[in-house]
Amino acid sequence: MGVRVGILGASGYTGGELARLLCRHPGVELGLITSERNAGKPLSAAFPHLRGVAEGLRFQKLTAEAAQGCDILFGALPHKVSMSVVPGLLAAGQRVIDLSADFRLKDAAVYADWYGLPHQAPDLLKEAVYGQPELNRAAIPGARLVANPGCYPTSVQLALAPFVRAGAVDERLIVVDSKSGVSGAGRSPSEGTQFAELSDGFRAYKVERHRHTPEMEQELSRLAGRPLTIRFTPHLLPQVRGILSTCYLMPKEPRSAAQWRELMVEFYQGETFVRVLPAGELAGTAAVRGSNYCDLSVSLDPRTGWVVVLAALDNLVKGAAGQAVQNMNLLLGLPETAGLTQAPLFP
Amino acid sequence: MGVRVGILGASGYTGGELARLLCRHPGVELGLITSERNAGKPLSAAFPHLRGVAEGLRFQKLTAEAAQGCDILFGALPHKVSMSVVPGLLAAGQRVIDLSADFRLKDAAVYADWYGLPHQAPDLLKEAVYGQPELNRAAIPGARLVANPGCYPTSVQLALAPFVRAGAVDERLIVVDSKSGVSGAGRSPSEGTQFAELSDGFRAYKVERHRHTPEMEQELSRLAGRPLTIRFTPHLLPQVRGILSTCYLMPKEPRSAAQWRELMVEFYQGETFVRVLPAGELAGTAAVRGSNYCDLSVSLDPRTGWVVVLAALDNLVKGAAGQAVQNMNLLLGLPETAGLTQAPLFP
Amino acid sequence: MGVRVGILGASGYTGGELARLLCRHPGVELGLITSERNAGKPLSAAFPHLRGVAEGLRFQKLTAEAAQGCDILFGALPHKVSMSVVPGLLAAGQRVIDLSADFRLKDAAVYADWYGLPHQAPDLLKEAVYGQPELNRAAIPGARLVANPGCYPTSVQLALAPFVRAGAVDERLIVVDSKSGVSGAGRSPSEGTQFAELSDGFRAYKVERHRHTPEMEQELSRLAGRPLTIRFTPHLLPQVRGILSTCYLMPKEPRSAAQWRELMVEFYQGETFVRVLPAGELAGTAAVRGSNYCDLSVSLDPRTGWVVVLAALDNLVKGAAGQAVQNMNLLLGLPETAGLTQAPLFP
Amino acid sequence: MGVRVGILGASGYTGGELARLLCRHPGVELGLITSERNAGKPLSAAFPHLRGVAEGLRFQKLTAEAAQGCDILFGALPHKVSMSVVPGLLAAGQRVIDLSADFRLKDAAVYADWYGLPHQAPDLLKEAVYGQPELNRAAIPGARLVANPGCYPTSVQLALAPFVRAGAVDERLIVVDSKSGVSGAGRSPSEGTQFAELSDGFRAYKVERHRHTPEMEQELSRLAGRPLTIRFTPHLLPQVRGILSTCYLMPKEPRSAAQWRELMVEFYQGETFVRVLPAGELAGTAAVRGSNYCDLSVSLDPRTGWVVVLAALDNLVKGAAGQAVQNMNLLLGLPETAGLTQAPLFP
Repeated sequence: MGVRVGILGASGYTGGELARLLCRHPGVELGLITSERNAGKPLSAAFPHLRGVAEGLRFQKLTAEAAQGCDILFGALPHKVSMSVVPGLLAAGQRVIDLSADFRLKDAAVYADWYGLPHQAPDLLKEAVYGQPELNRAAIPGARLVANPGCYPTSVQLALAPFVRAGAVDERLIVVDSKSGVSGAGRSPSEGTQFAELSDGFRAYKVERHRHTPEMEQELSRLAGRPLTIRFTPHLLPQVRGILSTCYLMPKEPRSAAQWRELMVEFYQGETFVRVLPAGELAGTAAVRGSNYCDLSVSLDPRTGWVVVLAALDNLVKGAAGQAVQNMNLLLGLPETAGLTQAPLFP
Repeated sequence: MGVRVGILGASGYTGGELARLLCRHPGVELGLITSERNAGKPLSAAFPHLRGVAEGLRFQKLTAEAAQGCDILFGALPHKVSMSVVPGLLAAGQRVIDLSADFRLKDAAVYADWYGLPHQAPDLLKEAVYGQPELNRAAIPGARLVANPGCYPTSVQLALAPFVRAGAVDERLIVVDSKSGVSGAGRSPSEGTQFAELSDGFRAYKVERHRHTPEMEQELSRLAGRPLTIRFTPHLLPQVRGILSTCYLMPKEPRSAAQWRELMVEFYQGETFVRVLPAGELAGTAAVRGSNYCDLSVSLDPRTGWVVVLAALDNLVKGAAGQAVQNMNLLLGLPETAGLTQAPLFP
Repeated sequence: MGVRVGILGASGYTGGELARLLCRHPGVELGLITSERNAGKPLSAAFPHLRGVAEGLRFQKLTAEAAQGCDILFGALPHKVSMSVVPGLLAAGQRVIDLSADFRLKDAAVYADWYGLPHQAPDLLKEAVYGQPELNRAAIPGARLVANPGCYPTSVQLALAPFVRAGAVDERLIVVDSKSGVSGAGRSPSEGTQFAELSDGFRAYKVERHRHTPEMEQELSRLAGRPLTIRFTPHLLPQVRGILSTCYLMPKEPRSAAQWRELMVEFYQGETFVRVLPAGELAGTAAVRGSNYCDLSVSLDPRTGWVVVLAALDNLVKGAAGQAVQNMNLLLGLPETAGLTQAPLFP
Repeated sequence: MGVRVGILGASGYTGGELARLLCRHPGVELGLITSERNAGKPLSAAFPHLRGVAEGLRFQKLTAEAAQGCDILFGALPHKVSMSVVPGLLAAGQRVIDLSADFRLKDAAVYADWYGLPHQAPDLLKEAVYGQPELNRAAIPGARLVANPGCYPTSVQLALAPFVRAGAVDERLIVVDSKSGVSGAGRSPSEGTQFAELSDGFRAYKVERHRHTPEMEQELSRLAGRPLTIRFTPHLLPQVRGILSTCYLMPKEPRSAAQWRELMVEFYQGETFVRVLPAGELAGTAAVRGSNYCDLSVSLDPRTGWVVVLAALDNLVKGAAGQAVQNMNLLLGLPETAGLTQAPLFP
């Protein structure tokens, strides 16, 4: 008998991507999809593209009973909802990979400050394991609760980890200029994400304060072994999938362009899902669409001294559902790439 | 020892899709990719998205020697070039799945009329097997030369086959209004396919005469058992992938909407890659992106009498590379779905 | 003292286009914009692009008092709301150009059938003048109530008028395949018009029954002098602005391609906003973006006998706000092109 | 008799925009358009959208004779070609507004370094007037040769001018992350600007060295009164029009957010084409499409100390043709806004 998994909140984009990946996964069976709005309808009612792919599945309301039959549950619920549901699931003996923001921050006060409400399960914050395999692999297999990273933080942390870990860059002068496709904003209709509003237009948003900032600072400070701050600016692209983060770092001591690249190559030695590009090539989102890859490139500007790191990933895959499946593979002791070997789709 | 396959003309979009599908195919090994322009470079020089997916492969020039090591060759060369190359490959004992237009028409005079040049290998036109598995499956396994259908014709033939085969519609009043994503125009740069020219714009082209018309008429006349003509209008969509063909048919005798749909459902009984949608749902290209599915829907307009059939497919997959792999599976006696089980990508 | 005009329901896309055109119009002053949702806010709160263009204007709630100061009112309210408001405005002595569907149909029973509710001001249906200047110019100047045509009907009627008026085509075999940019669906958020749902995808909708059908049939039957039916299929394009209607007509008697084109050229002699393209060129939406032009082209398919007419316009301008301003110019005795001479925007 | 103007190299996107603006300009007559490729054809052969707008105009080859009849010539030729043509025009007594990069840099050695070839008319570099009216207005009216600024530099210089002029920010820590629509790459077909390559994708380019960098540094150093360096990263957006530059500045001394904004408001007091947004609103490209506006916003990040300035403009208008017309108005003593009052187009 195979492992049975479920998706809580399966009618949004992240839920749909989880369904796409899990129904073709060789080691597990997708046995549960929940949605309050679509309860009773087949998966294809929300996702016509999956007709015939996962035929029998119907949405159910999320109940303790429904959840019980699963070995692992993916939480694709909104933040705040997630922290009200997860404790019960854990108490019932289940393992949870939570894709909301609710269990990523270690400090309940930081959560309250950035999310504007008190955390309802602060005791779980310490137990939750931050699920970014390339930076935290050892801790994941034994976890009951995995906090799946945010899409922006995944890109930024992969971009900066080699350099902050090495203590090679000024921790007070990190500038991150990120651009995201609109699928990152979720499936709920809003004026700002209408086609006619976004098409042929580009804008920044939440320039002064975006909730992914403390997550990046927490994880990179941990890697650096000392506190660092990040000037983070998110932008909305007129495209569906993809995040490109352009990161500016000021070296503490001079290195050649080749040495900066070498630092990165060595750091990601053996990682399947991180592709460090050859010198002279630049990361872009088109090359990772639909896949679990994160592409990285490093450039040095000798005129101004800045090092420029580019990180590109698909926000719904490596930035969400794909990384969650990678975490599941680790929990189950499967090959980390199981179910994630689809090549990117281009053009 | 596995089966070894090669792609001739592998640096265009169709070639890239063949590479994407074949390098993840469980039953064959991709051993050859040719490109005059990129000879010597790795696959990722033309397709950065495939970096790490098919690592060792390098483009070669197309020579008899290079081709020899392969059991099956996919021809993704331009028409005219194809008919100059294929005879030699067959003579050398290879099997060829040709994705150009050169071997689709049975009549060399029709070819000369629509393509504006005499056919160079007219003897092969009779031997070539038209590779649309759902409509011509029995003939494919034994073929030396498979002519892979055009993208528009695949959609139109799947849409109309059940009705013309049944003799249910007026053969002189068939109107087909097709819309294609721009990847169908190939990868060679031209002013008309520049982003700035196409974006937020829509237009028809080749309204009076498009080369896919005789292909549709040939195949559907064969199915109908009598000659038919099609009024075919292609349009260019501001999108990358996808063809939607809206087909207007005038019934010879009245049937209910349910009966029209039933005709189609029965015709495609058991076909994995044709999804006949439930009554009330309409085919669209977003639901088939990146997959080998063709979605079909049927509507009846009781006011005017017209039956409206919609067919949606991904022009690079079911309309080209995916169907070619389906044909290869038939040639090799593999399960017809091998290597083609990727779910569509949405959003 | 200039003429003072107002826009009722000014925070949607049609309202925004009216504001854009009217605040640069040489003969009128935009003195009122209403919006229940935005009352009290400046125009730029809904339309940041108009900041500095129409600086002092603030949205008001729609009241009889607010409306009173205007000589002409543009109704950009939803259908059903419009027919509840317009009678009062007329009673108060104002002239109204209504952009909703409420006063376009002459027959209250047809309205009830297609809109699913009884008409609340059936007496006004006869008085209302259908505001398509090229086809109904003489009736407009004296009107109290102008019913501004729908976007699809404007394109279809301009495409077909020369041929149905001449009695040159079979009235029972008219097929119209229309494609519209998504701004035609309005500004209210819905899942189906989200960027991530629409981008790189194309689909038909309301295939069996779209409310613009009776409007086209009414106007074209009037021109033809006998009843005709239209098989009309609307589609949604992944673009913001533009409608292309591809129309299929079956000649009653043979004519050459040049003669078909000549019929059209003569019909539109002297019309500024209709551009009949030279033989060999095809109408597309990119050439009319942001302008009040409708581009037309005619092709003949000698193989099948069909005549194919293409009509391209900007659904928000010639299909809505621009045509409304054209009607206003006629009401006021101004040059018909006043305020409408902006060249299209390309690329 | 009106002023007669001409466009040299009129078949690219910048040339098309100049034609669009000039043929509706109240104070000049567009009398000449040149194109080697399209000589003899009407303007609408290259720009179908301008059919009927500038009817009689036909492209000519560029000759001294053809140019002679014009009072002012707009050079929309490629760099290098421009510097070979402009000296002759000046010698013949004409005034030139040059939109190429050839006369923007003051130092021929810097030109040779960044453009990779020696300057052919170094004597003119001193005479040429840098045509950014908001920053250099006084010098323009008397010029024989106006060097029209680059698209990126226009945005960056407007964003930074108030702060570097005030000496308020660290001149060695300026980071500019710019994103441009693809029309900035011109109309010549290339693989990288094909629709299928760009759509739903985003990437950086020329990260280590982009030719607009020395232009920005020259102009901003001049304003600052001391040398400054800029870390400049250009990116390519999947959209046609629009540049958004996100600029990071490190204050020399603390100021409140309101004070930073006030600095900018005062600096641009009275400028029609610069819109400093209210606190809390962020500049985006959708609000300036098709217009000569540049929108600016300022934010302060108290956590990290960085000031973030956003500048949005339409690269073909304020970044090219619109600014050139603004310069022409200054040369002719016309109101600076003549022919530039079109409202932006949204959506």
